Amino acid sequence: MPDYRRRAAREAMSVRLDVNGMMAEAIGQAGVAVDEVETLAARSTEAAHALQAKRAAGELPFYDLPYQKDALAATKALAAEVRAECDTLVVLGIGGSTLGIKTLIGALETTRRIVVADNIDPWTFGALLDSLDLNRTAFNVISKSGDTAETMAQFLIVRDLLLRQLGAVEYTKHMVITTDADAGALRQIVHDEGFRALDVPAGVGGRFSVLSAVGLFPAAVGGIRVDDLLAGAAWMDSRCQDVKLWQHPAHLLAALLHLAATHHQQNIVVLMPYVDRLHGLAAWFAQLWAETLGKAETIDGAPAHVGQTPLAAVGATDQHALLQLLVEGPVDKVVIMLRAEDHGREIPIPAAYADLDSLGYLGGSGLGQLLNREQRATELALVRQQRPVVTISLPQLNPFTLGQLFYLFEAAAVFAAALYRVNPLDQPGVQASKQLTFGQMGRSGFEDERATVEAWVAHKRSEYIL
Amino acid sequence: MPDYRRRAAREAMSVRLDVNGMMAEAIGQAGVAVDEVETLAARSTEAAHALQAKRAAGELPFYDLPYQKDALAATKALAAEVRAECDTLVVLGIGGSTLGIKTLIGALETTRRIVVADNIDPWTFGALLDSLDLNRTAFNVISKSGDTAETMAQFLIVRDLLLRQLGAVEYTKHMVITTDADAGALRQIVHDEGFRALDVPAGVGGRFSVLSAVGLFPAAVGGIRVDDLLAGAAWMDSRCQDVKLWQHPAHLLAALLHLAATHHQQNIVVLMPYVDRLHGLAAWFAQLWAETLGKAETIDGAPAHVGQTPLAAVGATDQHALLQLLVEGPVDKVVIMLRAEDHGREIPIPAAYADLDSLGYLGGSGLGQLLNREQRATELALVRQQRPVVTISLPQLNPFTLGQLFYLFEAAAVFAAALYRVNPLDQPGVQASKQLTFGQMGRSGFEDERATVEAWVAHKRSEYIL
Repeated sequence: MPDYRRRAAREAMSVRLDVNGMMAEAIGQAGVAVDEVETLAARSTEAAHALQAKRAAGELPFYDLPYQKDALAATKALAAEVRAECDTLVVLGIGGSTLGIKTLIGALETTRRIVVADNIDPWTFGALLDSLDLNRTAFNVISKSGDTAETMAQFLIVRDLLLRQLGAVEYTKHMVITTDADAGALRQIVHDEGFRALDVPAGVGGRFSVLSAVGLFPAAVGGIRVDDLLAGAAWMDSRCQDVKLWQHPAHLLAALLHLAATHHQQNIVVLMPYVDRLHGLAAWFAQLWAETLGKAETIDGAPAHVGQTPLAAVGATDQHALLQLLVEGPVDKVVIMLRAEDHGREIPIPAAYADLDSLGYLGGSGLGQLLNREQRATELALVRQQRPVVTISLPQLNPFTLGQLFYLFEAAAVFAAALYRVNPLDQPGVQASKQLTFGQMGRSGFEDERATVEAWVAHKRSEYIL
Repeated sequence: MPDYRRRAAREAMSVRLDVNGMMAEAIGQAGVAVDEVETLAARSTEAAHALQAKRAAGELPFYDLPYQKDALAATKALAAEVRAECDTLVVLGIGGSTLGIKTLIGALETTRRIVVADNIDPWTFGALLDSLDLNRTAFNVISKSGDTAETMAQFLIVRDLLLRQLGAVEYTKHMVITTDADAGALRQIVHDEGFRALDVPAGVGGRFSVLSAVGLFPAAVGGIRVDDLLAGAAWMDSRCQDVKLWQHPAHLLAALLHLAATHHQQNIVVLMPYVDRLHGLAAWFAQLWAETLGKAETIDGAPAHVGQTPLAAVGATDQHALLQLLVEGPVDKVVIMLRAEDHGREIPIPAAYADLDSLGYLGGSGLGQLLNREQRATELALVRQQRPVVTISLPQLNPFTLGQLFYLFEAAAVFAAALYRVNPLDQPGVQASKQLTFGQMGRSGFEDERATVEAWVAHKRSEYIL
C-alpha cells in the first residue's frame, strides 16, 4: 500500500492529461491552435484569480473538501458504527446525491454491500425492498434541501416499512440522514425523531458533494479508503495552483473544451473510459458538466443558452456502437478517453488456431494489453480523421487516482463556467418540472400547474398520436 | 396471459407514438411545421416504395425476422437443450451482438441466469470467470464475422479454461456458437470441433439482429417468451405498411427527427425511458442510431458527415442530471420519452408528516403514479421552453411491447438513412481502429499500422502532457 504522505508515491500515482490530440498540430483546423489559447490567456488569468478569491472568501467550499478534518472524523466515526450493525447499506437519493457514491462503489471494492436506489420505479424499488433483511440493513437518506420529491417518497415508504417490521424503538437506528445542517424538512425530522445525521456542507451542491459526507459516509461504510480518496483530491489541488493555463490540468482541459465549443462547433463531450469500473465516473461527469454549464443566462443576465452535451461511453465496447459516428459523423464532438496503465489484473490470451489468420495473432498477448492497444488505436484513428481527442491516463484505478479525477473534473467545470460567464452552482431550469409535478400530486399552492398539465393533455391533437 | 392471435389483444397492448410535442403548434419555430412534413412527402413516398422493393428483393432481411419459423424452431430447440444442462448462460460478444440481449434481460424476468460479457477489461472479465461453476455454465459466443478481436480473445480464454477444467470430450458441450452460416473462422471451428451452432442470417448486421438467433437464443434459454416478442414486432410491422407518413409510426418518427436535424439544428436525440428496466433499450437504440446514420458519404459517394448523436438517459433520475441542460442549454436536442401506463407493480406512499409542506402532499399517492406524473411534467416543461419532445407510451412492459419497440426503431433507422441517402447497413469508419490494433498486436500484414502508432506516441509533444 503506497504511503501518499511521501511525494514520490504521489508522483508515481499521478493522473496524466494528454491534450496532443486536441491541438491543431495533430488534427489541423478542427484542433485548437496555440494562438487561440493565447487569445484566451488574459481572460483565463482573470478567471483564475477570481476563482482563487472566491475560494479564499469561502464562496466555493467544494475546493476545500479534501481538508475538512472534523467533518471527516465525524463521518468515519458514524460509518464505523453502521459497519458494525449492518451487512447492507441502501442509499436513498437521486442525481448529485448519489452519482458520486455510485461511481465509488462501481470503481472500488467494498467490504459491505452498498446499494444505491436513485429512482422511483416501483418495479425496481419494490424488488430491492423485497430482497433485504431489514434487521441487517441500514438506510442512508440523502437530500440537501430535504424536500426532493423522489427521495422523500422513498423515505416515507422505507420509514413505514421499518416501523412496521422493527417497531417504533428500533427503527430509527436503521436510518442515517444526510441533509443541510440547519434547514429543511429532513433536518426537522432528525430533530423530532432522533435519527443519526450528517451535514451536507453549506454551499456544496449535489454535483460537488462527492468528497463530503454525501459520498464519504456510504464509501466509508463500504470500507473504501476515504483518506486515500481525499489525498488524491488534495494532490490534484496541489497541481492546480498556477494561474497559467499550461501549468494547470483542470483549467487547461476546461479552456480547450471551451475553445472547441465556441470556436470549432464541437459542443458534445464524450467521456469514454477504457475501464469497465469507470462507467459510473462517466455518468457522474455527465451530470457535473450538464448542470454546471447548461444555462440560459450569463451571470450578468444576458441570454446564453450555452452548455456542452456530455455523453458517457465505455471502451472498447462502444467502438462497436458509437465509433462509426465519432469517426464519420459531424465534427461536433471532443472525445475524452480514460485509460489505466495497470488494470490490477491481467488475463493471458492462450495461443490456439495459429493457422487461422483472425485468431492466431491474439495468442500470447493479454486481455488488458489488447484493451489498451485498442484505446491507442482508436485515439489515433480519431486523430487521423481530424477529430479531437484527449487522453487521461491513470497508473492504476484506486482511491487515490479516483480522488484526482473527481477534483480535476470539478475544478474544470467551475473554470469552464467562468469562461462561459455562467453561474456554476445553480440549476434554475429544473424548477418548472418540479412544480408541474406538485400540481398533479395535489400539493397546495400548485393548482395552476395542475390545470396547465390537464390542458396540455386534453388539447393534444389526435392526428399526432399514432 | 393475453392471446396475441386476437386482434383485440394486440390493439389493447399497442405502443403509441405521440409527436404533439415536436410540432410547431406546440413549440413554435423550434418545432416541425406541417408544411415542412408536406415538402418531404414526395421524397418520403419514394423512399418508402424503395424500401418496400428492397424488402421484397430480400435485400433488407431484418424486416422479415418476425416470420422465420424454421430458424425460430431451431433456436428454441437448442435453447431447450441448454436450459436443461445449465443454470447460467454467459454470452460472449460485443456491440450489436449483445446490446439486444442486454436489453432483453434488463427488461424482462428470466428463469435462468443470463450474463453478458461484452468487454475485455481483465478485471471484470476475470471476476466473472472466477464466479462461475463451469459444470453448470454454458457459453454463447456471438460474432457474425467470426473474427471480432474482443470476442475471439474471450473465446480463446474460455475455451482454454473449459478444456483444462472439463477435458477435451466434455468442453464442446458448454459452448454454443452463433455466427455466419458459411464464412469465417468461427464457422470453420464449428466444423472442426463439433460445437453446436446457430446462424446469423445473411444480410442481418449486428444492430438489426436482436430478433434473430443472436438475441432469441439467449432469451429463450432465459425463458423469455420469444413468441410474444416476435408477435409484437409483427404487430408493429402490420402498423407500418402505409406509405403515407401520418399513417406509419416508424416513418413519421424518422421524418420528424430528420427534419429536426436538417431544418432546426437539433442533431442530438435523447432517449429517456421512465422505466428503469428500459435503460438497456436506450443503449441499444444509441448503437442503432449512431451506426446506421453516422456516415461520411451518401450512397452516391457525395460527402455527407451526417448522423444524429443518440444519448441514453433514464427518468426520473436524469431530471436531476441532464434536465437543466435540456431546458436551458442550446436548442439542439429532441427528447424521446418512454413511459409505461402500468408498471406491473405499485408501491403506495404512506401518509405521514401531514404538517410538513414538502412531504404531506406525497401520502396517498403511489410511486409509479409519481413517476408518470414527473414524466408528464417534464414533457410539458420542455414544451413550455419550446424544446421538442416525443412521448412513446407502453400499456405495460412485456415481450409483446418490447418487440414493437425494437421493430419501430429499426424501421425508423432504415427510413432515416433513406432520407439522409446513406447506407444503413455498413460501418466503414470502424476499420481504421481495428487495423491499428492489429498492428500493435503483431498481426501479419499490419506492419505499417504498427509503425504509425509508434510514431504517434513517440512524437507527442511533452508540453501538451500535464
